[in-house]
Amino acid sequence: MSEKKPQVGILMGSDNDFDIMAEAARALKEFGVSWEMTVTSAHRSPEKTAKYVRSARDRGLKVLIAGAGAAAHLAGVVAAETTLPVVAVPIDATALRGLDALLAMVQMPAGIPVATMAIGKAGARNAGLFAVQILSLGDAELAGKLAAFKTNLARGVEERDQALQTRVARELGA
Amino acid sequence: MSEKKPQVGILMGSDNDFDIMAEAARALKEFGVSWEMTVTSAHRSPEKTAKYVRSARDRGLKVLIAGAGAAAHLAGVVAAETTLPVVAVPIDATALRGLDALLAMVQMPAGIPVATMAIGKAGARNAGLFAVQILSLGDAELAGKLAAFKTNLARGVEERDQALQTRVARELGA
Amino acid sequence: MSEKKPQVGILMGSDNDFDIMAEAARALKEFGVSWEMTVTSAHRSPEKTAKYVRSARDRGLKVLIAGAGAAAHLAGVVAAETTLPVVAVPIDATALRGLDALLAMVQMPAGIPVATMAIGKAGARNAGLFAVQILSLGDAELAGKLAAFKTNLARGVEERDQALQTRVARELGA
Amino acid sequence: MSEKKPQVGILMGSDNDFDIMAEAARALKEFGVSWEMTVTSAHRSPEKTAKYVRSARDRGLKVLIAGAGAAAHLAGVVAAETTLPVVAVPIDATALRGLDALLAMVQMPAGIPVATMAIGKAGARNAGLFAVQILSLGDAELAGKLAAFKTNLARGVEERDQALQTRVARELGA
Amino acid sequence: MSEKKPQVGILMGSDNDFDIMAEAARALKEFGVSWEMTVTSAHRSPEKTAKYVRSARDRGLKVLIAGAGAAAHLAGVVAAETTLPVVAVPIDATALRGLDALLAMVQMPAGIPVATMAIGKAGARNAGLFAVQILSLGDAELAGKLAAFKTNLARGVEERDQALQTRVARELGA
Amino acid sequence: MSEKKPQVGILMGSDNDFDIMAEAARALKEFGVSWEMTVTSAHRSPEKTAKYVRSARDRGLKVLIAGAGAAAHLAGVVAAETTLPVVAVPIDATALRGLDALLAMVQMPAGIPVATMAIGKAGARNAGLFAVQILSLGDAELAGKLAAFKTNLARGVEERDQALQTRVARELGA
Amino acid sequence: MSEKKPQVGILMGSDNDFDIMAEAARALKEFGVSWEMTVTSAHRSPEKTAKYVRSARDRGLKVLIAGAGAAAHLAGVVAAETTLPVVAVPIDATALRGLDALLAMVQMPAGIPVATMAIGKAGARNAGLFAVQILSLGDAELAGKLAAFKTNLARGVEERDQALQTRVARELGA
Amino acid sequence: MSEKKPQVGILMGSDNDFDIMAEAARALKEFGVSWEMTVTSAHRSPEKTAKYVRSARDRGLKVLIAGAGAAAHLAGVVAAETTLPVVAVPIDATALRGLDALLAMVQMPAGIPVATMAIGKAGARNAGLFAVQILSLGDAELAGKLAAFKTNLARGVEERDQALQTRVARELGA
Repeated sequence: MSEKKPQVGILMGSDNDFDIMAEAARALKEFGVSWEMTVTSAHRSPEKTAKYVRSARDRGLKVLIAGAGAAAHLAGVVAAETTLPVVAVPIDATALRGLDALLAMVQMPAGIPVATMAIGKAGARNAGLFAVQILSLGDAELAGKLAAFKTNLARGVEERDQALQTRVARELGA
Repeated sequence: MSEKKPQVGILMGSDNDFDIMAEAARALKEFGVSWEMTVTSAHRSPEKTAKYVRSARDRGLKVLIAGAGAAAHLAGVVAAETTLPVVAVPIDATALRGLDALLAMVQMPAGIPVATMAIGKAGARNAGLFAVQILSLGDAELAGKLAAFKTNLARGVEERDQALQTRVARELGA
Repeated sequence: MSEKKPQVGILMGSDNDFDIMAEAARALKEFGVSWEMTVTSAHRSPEKTAKYVRSARDRGLKVLIAGAGAAAHLAGVVAAETTLPVVAVPIDATALRGLDALLAMVQMPAGIPVATMAIGKAGARNAGLFAVQILSLGDAELAGKLAAFKTNLARGVEERDQALQTRVARELGA
Repeated sequence: MSEKKPQVGILMGSDNDFDIMAEAARALKEFGVSWEMTVTSAHRSPEKTAKYVRSARDRGLKVLIAGAGAAAHLAGVVAAETTLPVVAVPIDATALRGLDALLAMVQMPAGIPVATMAIGKAGARNAGLFAVQILSLGDAELAGKLAAFKTNLARGVEERDQALQTRVARELGA
Repeated sequence: MSEKKPQVGILMGSDNDFDIMAEAARALKEFGVSWEMTVTSAHRSPEKTAKYVRSARDRGLKVLIAGAGAAAHLAGVVAAETTLPVVAVPIDATALRGLDALLAMVQMPAGIPVATMAIGKAGARNAGLFAVQILSLGDAELAGKLAAFKTNLARGVEERDQALQTRVARELGA
Repeated sequence: MSEKKPQVGILMGSDNDFDIMAEAARALKEFGVSWEMTVTSAHRSPEKTAKYVRSARDRGLKVLIAGAGAAAHLAGVVAAETTLPVVAVPIDATALRGLDALLAMVQMPAGIPVATMAIGKAGARNAGLFAVQILSLGDAELAGKLAAFKTNLARGVEERDQALQTRVARELGA
Repeated sequence: MSEKKPQVGILMGSDNDFDIMAEAARALKEFGVSWEMTVTSAHRSPEKTAKYVRSARDRGLKVLIAGAGAAAHLAGVVAAETTLPVVAVPIDATALRGLDALLAMVQMPAGIPVATMAIGKAGARNAGLFAVQILSLGDAELAGKLAAFKTNLARGVEERDQALQTRVARELGA
Repeated sequence: MSEKKPQVGILMGSDNDFDIMAEAARALKEFGVSWEMTVTSAHRSPEKTAKYVRSARDRGLKVLIAGAGAAAHLAGVVAAETTLPVVAVPIDATALRGLDALLAMVQMPAGIPVATMAIGKAGARNAGLFAVQILSLGDAELAGKLAAFKTNLARGVEERDQALQTRVARELGA
């Protein structure tokens, strides 16, 4: 948990998913957005999950991020109990390489939206960034940071292009 | 609901699924097993679902059958709230032809079993038959009926073979 | 376009997608959220797309919803040009039944989030509802409407359950 | 084989599948349910399979669990010969990562139910637990153990949450 | 059944599959190869299936063709009981469009070969032709007919090319 | 065949594919690029195919377009016999909806490139346009037409946007 | 090449596929069936392939086995040039894990049968065994060996069952 | 960059893709075709990408090759801004093994062709060779080199066949 009252709740079914979901927390930290992280399961601890989610808005949480693998019900179950925006991160945890988690998260029926990101770390980082984008609608400072972040993304491409030219010269003799 | 106190609860997320899930009820009727049928949703009515499931064992239910399409969480959410056997029927309700529902049902994590049947009507009928098989373990009469049913299946193959020979003669001139 | 200055921009690659994407607009109308709808293409009109998106925040738009089929690049291309939240609706427009659009939208690389919904009308409606959820974070009236909407979802399940019991009695004689 | 007359038969096509299928046996052991384990193949030893299955009910077996990979016919072939409940565990044994085994098990035609679990170890463990759930219908002691097991699942989530908070503090400095 | 003692046995799980499997019989008829057609099921009539297959070689059958849909076990179960060549035709009979039947037929484990053809009518026709190819190894007359058949295939392409040129002139004005 | 000596050869395995492949011809006609269309099969007329392709460069053909469905080998077989650019159009002709044709065309091994387009009519039209792009490298007039075509694409988006606004006003009352 | 005039030709696109395709040769060796093995490519050496195949029947070959990965055209191209039975082995050689090769081999259009086996080593071994089954139709000695082989398969299951019991006792204490 | 004014531009979203995309450059080098290589992203540097592509024809580039993984929009976005031929290389960069990139590249809508190659290194090498084929239409020397290259491919098969015979003798004792 970050020191400020958390604005974003990051949920996962097991601490095995920490390495993936930590990417979401890191993105939030980069933008100074407070967060908390919790293990709770749609299947093994349904009461804890419901209790956590029902109190979320009142506790000041603005966005919930749920990461899960296999038959990944966590995000849908969370969305069933709240009107806060819920962001889903499918995790590659089975032989089917996350396709099961992706479909179990993204194909939500009408009425209960779940905003699904890519499978794995890219998705977890984007879940964090997406929460920042949502919060930036009411926070001009965050909006400014996002604009700077976007400029940095483009600058990062330039740096990688430099790195590429070095490899081209060294490995392709061109 | 059949007249006797129901032994099997059939759950579905919407009455749109009736045509599929009625196959489960018809199978139970053939064997004289009592049942009830309920619309309840993992996402739109989580409290109703939890309340129904938590009271199921005490109300005398022995097996729960859950049919759902899309990101089909109903069976998993039901299994989270009970120790009764839960049987799942994936329904072809989206562009992905039931593959989404199948994976969302069958890929349950360790600890919360969901017994998944085939997509659609075949799966619904088998869910009913599977409930009968479970109940037959403590009911010799049902076990006898199942043995007779199996003999009939083989007899049905003979009848279909007769029908085939007629078509062969007529359409293939052989 | 609704009469108030639009808060949500709904983009699609072709007016062929209107029947799907209208579901997003209808959801916004139910909540009194203003919106506008535009045809623009990632591939056929990249300049129009970029111009529309770059000016979006300044014109008061808060959320962008992009629907596309096939190699569905629209949402990603929109997200590349803005820091507003971008919500994607994959459309079943090819022989691959929307799986192509889904993967082309959801598998975004780290840095550029796109919040992907289900394929087709369910996804479009949820895109509209998700935009309402985002806007409700800074709008207590909307938050209240969402709470009521959720109660209505549960009530709708009860109504469908009544309809089911009628069918059960009529068609299954139970 | 456990010492008591076995109630559950665990079948697999090869001892290569032992590491997966042992999860089913371990689950049964945790609940004190007796079991036996057998290698038999739908394809290489059809007579042994049929003989084993046909005598199963008379030998006191109540549930059969079949694990197989590739074109996984074992569960279906077993179900063809018995009216006992048959539980299937698809195994990831080919380049197609268990999708072949899953579809070959779950898509059974109407008349011959096979209760399919997840691919791999999670599925094997759940197969054992599901057998316990079935047996608990006629065994109050088992039902009590299952209730305790479910409470323990929730408690396990709490322990994992504690472990998570430690990692959060250490690795995310929060 | 053709008048001569049949050389090829065509098996299917239901007379519903007749329209597909008749293509195999028609191919055999074109070459004057005798055949018989039978409904038998891996799951509903395992004894009939085993009895049919075990006597097949002695009754003079040389090749067995098995068509099935869903979890298509028929070909594998047939191959388990004979050393005759077994040819499989996957049938599109479920929401998964024959992908289930294809994988359930083609992914046979080492030791029990099943020669799988394409899904549906093309596969059924090819199963018949493949049986002819096998029989032609010991039958010079058949081999001659196959050579003529191949020449006709090429001639058929010429005829279709003529038809194409007519359409090109009429519809493309070229 | 257009009147000028053809620059692009359009091949297909059957005149059944005419409706799809005509889109390629129409695209070429729009740009005044000459073409011819031929039925030839990788499997039924391998000699005709090889003969056609080997003489293609000498007859003045510059680009070959091959459309095929199922196990679509035509493009690969054509590419094996020429150093001209070969463009492939996968056709949805089986239960697998063109996924089989797509993979059979696009996954060519190193050494034999095949430029694969989308499944179906969109792919066929793009195959024609791609041939124009190739030819435009040595033809300034074609290059000019392509630039105009691209401007028209953007203009078409504007027209569709107008059509959308009409539907929005009429159907969404906005 | 074995010393006797070869009866079975094993073709592959590259010596990289040797480890897989050697399984076919080993199966043939076990039964004393003569064979030869050749690298030839549908794409890189179409003339060599055609020449090899066209002379195959005259050189005494009875069955051709073709192994290939990626867009695996070899079996289809071989089948286009001969009326001998052609058996295909899809090889897992790309990111798509052999699904591409499987579909490119099995989905052959009507008229040109290709008998497809499982992906990888199991499929290669079965291709060899299937060739033996074909040859056994005209060779009573081979037919006898196949009957013995089948008995051995069942015996092998018994041995594996013994091995299993040892592991059960040691690892599960049962 | 090669010393001559580049004729082919190779684009990739990150220098992580260098190992794959270098295969394209190597193919071009073998034929003495000049090229340049650039990191630019559809999502992180849309302006750089547009600027690069819009000036490409004027700077003398004839063919653009774009490699990308995940939701691979780069090729489509490049094709949106130019009338030069665009060749796409899907990269296996996520849990879905390049299927996402393949579909996001190949399923382009009508009007904007993208010529898609195989996933990974084979595709990158073929992208380079395909560019050579395009350029050879206006360059007789290149056309001659391609003819020689094709002859060498066939010769390479012979060499691999020799290598195979050695392994056959050593490992299969034949």
